[in-house]
Amino acid sequence: MTYIKGYSCTICGKFYETKAEMVLCPDCKDKGILEIEFDYEKIKTVFSKEVLKDNKDYSIWRYLPLLPVEEKYTKGSLRVGWTPLLESKNNELYQIKKLHFKDDGLNPTLSLKDRASVIACVKALENNNRTIACASTGNAASSLAGNAAKMGLKTVIFVPKRAPIGKLTQLLVFGANVIKVDGDYKKAFSLSKKAIEHFGWYNRNAAINPNLIEGKKTVALEIAEQLDFDVPDWVVVSVGDGCTIGGVYKGFYDLLQLNMIKKIPKILGVQALGCDPFYQAFINDKPLEETDEFTIADSIAVGIPRNPVKGLNAVKKSKGSYLVVSDEEIMKAMKLLAESEGIFAEPAASAAFAGFIKARSENLIKEEETVTVIITGNGLKDTKNALTILEEPVLLEDDLEELIRYFKKEKRG
Amino acid sequence: MTYIKGYSCTICGKFYETKAEMVLCPDCKDKGILEIEFDYEKIKTVFSKEVLKDNKDYSIWRYLPLLPVEEKYTKGSLRVGWTPLLESKNNELYQIKKLHFKDDGLNPTLSLKDRASVIACVKALENNNRTIACASTGNAASSLAGNAAKMGLKTVIFVPKRAPIGKLTQLLVFGANVIKVDGDYKKAFSLSKKAIEHFGWYNRNAAINPNLIEGKKTVALEIAEQLDFDVPDWVVVSVGDGCTIGGVYKGFYDLLQLNMIKKIPKILGVQALGCDPFYQAFINDKPLEETDEFTIADSIAVGIPRNPVKGLNAVKKSKGSYLVVSDEEIMKAMKLLAESEGIFAEPAASAAFAGFIKARSENLIKEEETVTVIITGNGLKDTKNALTILEEPVLLEDDLEELIRYFKKEKRG
Repeated sequence: MTYIKGYSCTICGKFYETKAEMVLCPDCKDKGILEIEFDYEKIKTVFSKEVLKDNKDYSIWRYLPLLPVEEKYTKGSLRVGWTPLLESKNNELYQIKKLHFKDDGLNPTLSLKDRASVIACVKALENNNRTIACASTGNAASSLAGNAAKMGLKTVIFVPKRAPIGKLTQLLVFGANVIKVDGDYKKAFSLSKKAIEHFGWYNRNAAINPNLIEGKKTVALEIAEQLDFDVPDWVVVSVGDGCTIGGVYKGFYDLLQLNMIKKIPKILGVQALGCDPFYQAFINDKPLEETDEFTIADSIAVGIPRNPVKGLNAVKKSKGSYLVVSDEEIMKAMKLLAESEGIFAEPAASAAFAGFIKARSENLIKEEETVTVIITGNGLKDTKNALTILEEPVLLEDDLEELIRYFKKEKRG
Repeated sequence: MTYIKGYSCTICGKFYETKAEMVLCPDCKDKGILEIEFDYEKIKTVFSKEVLKDNKDYSIWRYLPLLPVEEKYTKGSLRVGWTPLLESKNNELYQIKKLHFKDDGLNPTLSLKDRASVIACVKALENNNRTIACASTGNAASSLAGNAAKMGLKTVIFVPKRAPIGKLTQLLVFGANVIKVDGDYKKAFSLSKKAIEHFGWYNRNAAINPNLIEGKKTVALEIAEQLDFDVPDWVVVSVGDGCTIGGVYKGFYDLLQLNMIKKIPKILGVQALGCDPFYQAFINDKPLEETDEFTIADSIAVGIPRNPVKGLNAVKKSKGSYLVVSDEEIMKAMKLLAESEGIFAEPAASAAFAGFIKARSENLIKEEETVTVIITGNGLKDTKNALTILEEPVLLEDDLEELIRYFKKEKRG
């Protein structure tokens, strides 16, 4: 059984009391993205810190009472979640009381998206649906393809014409049925929508499907549990379409309702300077407007975010903030993160760390505060950009004297 | 404290009773690779299935009494180990009683090598050594660079001239000091040896350092614990220099000495047809001879394995076997593994699965037996080879009718 009470519309606010799966608000149609509401009083009877202590399932399924899925189909999945929470030893360098990194690049397909994809797969099985579809070229698509492969489901992925083959490798190898649409992302999305309706496939277009944010929220549940429910003052995460940051808020919100934490951390949403619709909306206090998509951080290059309400609410309700970082700051942060923390993050994930550095330099985050930075994807997802900041190694003869001279020069340099 | 009793030489068999770190047998010199021997009776007083049940440290450090390191320096490491053990649901397809995959591609730098590298880093810290060096272009190097970065250690990596920049990305981003040697791997190794002696750096050249196999053995400890100590009939692993397979054997050997398992699984070592010195030595029952290195599975393309004794003993003592697979079989296995199990493995790791398939077709592994295949590295380590077996997606207009026609044709095809 699930502990869902019903669905509320993020636009009109109407509450639908039902356990039957809903996707969009019948009144608000396409814009009427729904939020799942849980029966926290009932959840309290089966879920607590003590229950977690005895739970040996170190995956997102340890939080089953807080998820919109039945246990039955969760058994055959990839092992998603319970990624490392690593404490930095470089507090002095960053001038911060305590800093942790949540390395979600170590999920099965190397991104946080697995938390949503595995939920989509379970929902598809619950609905007796053998095919899942989405429009994406990035982590959502490869994640869906990998999780679906493990669970015996077919996937159809719609990609824009320009999608480079390199980016498609991971999803093609997982056996996804990839349809390249002669046009841009909007065209790919449009055909995916028509096809999903026509064929009755399960829909993993993230923002629209309210179940997916519930999967993503497990990253917050884990951060809390891994810190023994003493949550940090700030959680920093990069923002594209607004679903991940929405999930982060929802996870902490759940725990607060259950009296398992004392506060919701302030959430810092980080966007790329070249694609910053949330930042613009936040600082100007106006609705989201479409922006360009000029950034190397392709996983957060979303000019028309499809989850504006949840993405803005996460920051507003947590009393956090939005800020922007340049591509140069992102790449510098990527290098610093790798060489000082041993975490190789993709550009979009490095943006969160760049945001933390900026927030410290502007004293938005204070020295006496504690912080967790979420790393949303692994660096091997995109080595092309990393290469641009790396120096070619020196070439030496097989000669010890030459090597000794080289190191002497290095030291002086 | 550690539970080391001493070191025995894999060549002359001499036992050195000491807790002080040793690297090579003083009598046998360069060939005298040592094996660490533990005091199992003492270990039994602190380590058992019950102790493990209460241990919440889900990393290789949960096996600390079986490792050659002190606890002190293990605290600040990356979280290595406790990778997923996934049960296949495709028993019928492979005609096998039970099949598991140990996905070691989800270690922090995406390969099993992290199990050895993190031990090397701790040993360096114990020895008050701030720099670690090795000769390698592959997973050992990037793994060392990542683990050392987290622990505040410097790394010097010697690579042959031909090492492509793509392959170096991961280690360069972790801030390794990369020295390109004007020559082949042997030249790089030779300069690394001279430099390590001259500068007094810690040596992570895998075969020579007996601590590293102790790190690698944790993969076997985890397989056993994740299966509730009911170990499989077979464990399948790909073989390059012989260290990993040596570690797999050592892990099960330890558990047998501690009466925690009832048998050591038969170990199947898989080599590439174009580079098969262990296979040749095994089937012809003669000493290892140098072979060519013609295979796409670069992580196991080792023409002169540096751990011949341990690599052969693992198979002989476990009553297992060696076999070879072609590059074509490797790539087919990679695709099958990804699309039917949701695991994207690099070619060397896919070789193990190809070996399992071959062993089933030859009935070396029987239908009524149970098997665990170790996946030693993630597919994103090498997407170039994966691309060669993937088909370019079809290009369609943003038109539902065309899509419907496409799927009809696919079904007929």
